[in-house]
Amino acid sequence: MDYKKNKNIIIQECNTALEKVNIDDVNTLVQIILEAKNVFFIGIGRVKLGLEAFAKRLNHLGIRAYMVGDINEPAMRRDDVLIVGSGSGESLIPIAIAKKAKQLGGKIIHLGSNQHSSISKFTDLMIRIPVQTKLYLPDEINSRQPMSSLFEQCILLFADIIAMMIIEKQNIDLKNLWSFHANLE
Amino acid sequence: MDYKKNKNIIIQECNTALEKVNIDDVNTLVQIILEAKNVFFIGIGRVKLGLEAFAKRLNHLGIRAYMVGDINEPAMRRDDVLIVGSGSGESLIPIAIAKKAKQLGGKIIHLGSNQHSSISKFTDLMIRIPVQTKLYLPDEINSRQPMSSLFEQCILLFADIIAMMIIEKQNIDLKNLWSFHANLE
Amino acid sequence: MDYKKNKNIIIQECNTALEKVNIDDVNTLVQIILEAKNVFFIGIGRVKLGLEAFAKRLNHLGIRAYMVGDINEPAMRRDDVLIVGSGSGESLIPIAIAKKAKQLGGKIIHLGSNQHSSISKFTDLMIRIPVQTKLYLPDEINSRQPMSSLFEQCILLFADIIAMMIIEKQNIDLKNLWSFHANLE
Amino acid sequence: MDYKKNKNIIIQECNTALEKVNIDDVNTLVQIILEAKNVFFIGIGRVKLGLEAFAKRLNHLGIRAYMVGDINEPAMRRDDVLIVGSGSGESLIPIAIAKKAKQLGGKIIHLGSNQHSSISKFTDLMIRIPVQTKLYLPDEINSRQPMSSLFEQCILLFADIIAMMIIEKQNIDLKNLWSFHANLE
Repeated sequence: MDYKKNKNIIIQECNTALEKVNIDDVNTLVQIILEAKNVFFIGIGRVKLGLEAFAKRLNHLGIRAYMVGDINEPAMRRDDVLIVGSGSGESLIPIAIAKKAKQLGGKIIHLGSNQHSSISKFTDLMIRIPVQTKLYLPDEINSRQPMSSLFEQCILLFADIIAMMIIEKQNIDLKNLWSFHANLE
Repeated sequence: MDYKKNKNIIIQECNTALEKVNIDDVNTLVQIILEAKNVFFIGIGRVKLGLEAFAKRLNHLGIRAYMVGDINEPAMRRDDVLIVGSGSGESLIPIAIAKKAKQLGGKIIHLGSNQHSSISKFTDLMIRIPVQTKLYLPDEINSRQPMSSLFEQCILLFADIIAMMIIEKQNIDLKNLWSFHANLE
Repeated sequence: MDYKKNKNIIIQECNTALEKVNIDDVNTLVQIILEAKNVFFIGIGRVKLGLEAFAKRLNHLGIRAYMVGDINEPAMRRDDVLIVGSGSGESLIPIAIAKKAKQLGGKIIHLGSNQHSSISKFTDLMIRIPVQTKLYLPDEINSRQPMSSLFEQCILLFADIIAMMIIEKQNIDLKNLWSFHANLE
Repeated sequence: MDYKKNKNIIIQECNTALEKVNIDDVNTLVQIILEAKNVFFIGIGRVKLGLEAFAKRLNHLGIRAYMVGDINEPAMRRDDVLIVGSGSGESLIPIAIAKKAKQLGGKIIHLGSNQHSSISKFTDLMIRIPVQTKLYLPDEINSRQPMSSLFEQCILLFADIIAMMIIEKQNIDLKNLWSFHANLE
């Protein structure tokens, strides 16, 4: 039972996985987020938690971001974006929501690992983090971690890279950010 | 085990409790909600669920309403309102949040039963639904239901009465409401 | 803008709708809940909030109940039950989850209004509360309330009727219930 | 706007911060979690999301873990543990809950950065991740990231290190884990 060894495994796996992401795709994603009227997120389980952190930070940066199912979720329209987080691209609810969003005319972005998933036919842009999913596909990075832990970690870290890119691009002053932050709790 | 008998108990208790609410206070509440820039809600357990339904409906009516803790909760400011739901007025988190909101200069409204609670010193307006709380005070309506079920039911029904009053006052067309409703799920 | 008038509309509509529920079906539901190993709930929007209140109360009564998506949601198995709340029976996610639960061998109960919905083919028991849905079907009770408010109110009140029936059947002492109640907030 | 540069900053900051955690404290934490009857978590905002991921994974490993406020949160008792996530140790709700849990006789663990916080007087064990908080204390690791992003990332990665330590200690077979995983979504 070794803290340091396991810490090193996780840090290295995250670094390797995030290194593989296509930079042009990331730049396109930032552009799409900044041009969207509303950004919606859907995911399940621990992936959903990472996407909630993503949405929360985007709100701090002045971008209207919502989880599908939120108390104050607006109706989706043509100039909105849905970001679907699903490693395998085979999770039931994300597929159903992606399909619906496509019918409504919105843009669909898939954050996932599996390039040939059921979501791919609804997708305008895939950001591929090529890590182990429950499908254990041959072109995925193996992980020594349980289940889809590595994907979940990458979602949070990736979200925070995007946040830093937006902060740089928009010249946002970090000190000012606290003034938009929730202040009741 | 009798469905109809229990249905009648619940319907009657709700009716009796909601009958006791002071109408002037309700009119003041509607006014405050309509004038607020943002409406925040705090409550715990099943009361929180009733307040979430309240917040969700207010959003449908074009009012910016949030649960404390929401993904996209903004900072509270002077022209905002906090609605605290707590039968006893002695729940830990609602008290702490009410105190903080008061310091930030917002208006505090207490939806509760106990008039002499710890929240009362932070309160600008109390809407009293005088039903059984875990304190079993002498001026509360006894309930044959478990715990604070009656209070929780009254929160939801009261929220929906307020929604109907706002719809009337603003001449909102019910048919149009669906177009603002979330459409992805 | 009239508090009392709107209160009376809501109370009466709830009473009329709950009156129409088939009592044999309710008794079967109570039996199924008491025999289930785990009870899962799925619904969206304000219906979901009512089901959460249902699940929370069942837990107080010693029954293992979960929302699909909960932090500690277990795997569904053959001796488990899924309760789907959907007025129209046409909501995307509830249909997808019902289908999946059926494949896993669990029992499916539909709390809804529309008898001829997409969920019906997966359903072992339908509890029909025949109120207005977004489909505005001819055999639904019209409501003067916005959208599916009446259905949402009925879900909460119905849940609490079921809770009282279980309390009676199991001879649960109301005073003891608080000792199982969450005590940290 | 540079993806790779920002990725490297985040990975390096996470590594440096997690490197500073006291290993004896971590071993004690694992012991306490394994001996607890129930593990409760409290935190707010993005820290809460990291703790939810922690709780979710513990449940997969057969440990009863709950967020304070969960649908099926049981009453806290003497043989239970509360894990409080708060960088500054000065967040309102976590302090209030820690105080209450102490009165109920449970163990309190603080995951945070500030050693001299209001929570410290209720704490049995502090796991210190010495990173930037909103207090900007002199003994904190500076971060180039916004607000408390680094702390939030560390919470998730730390949780997953703990999960791996438990898996090793208990000889849990990773392949078997999926069978306890929620299977409806």
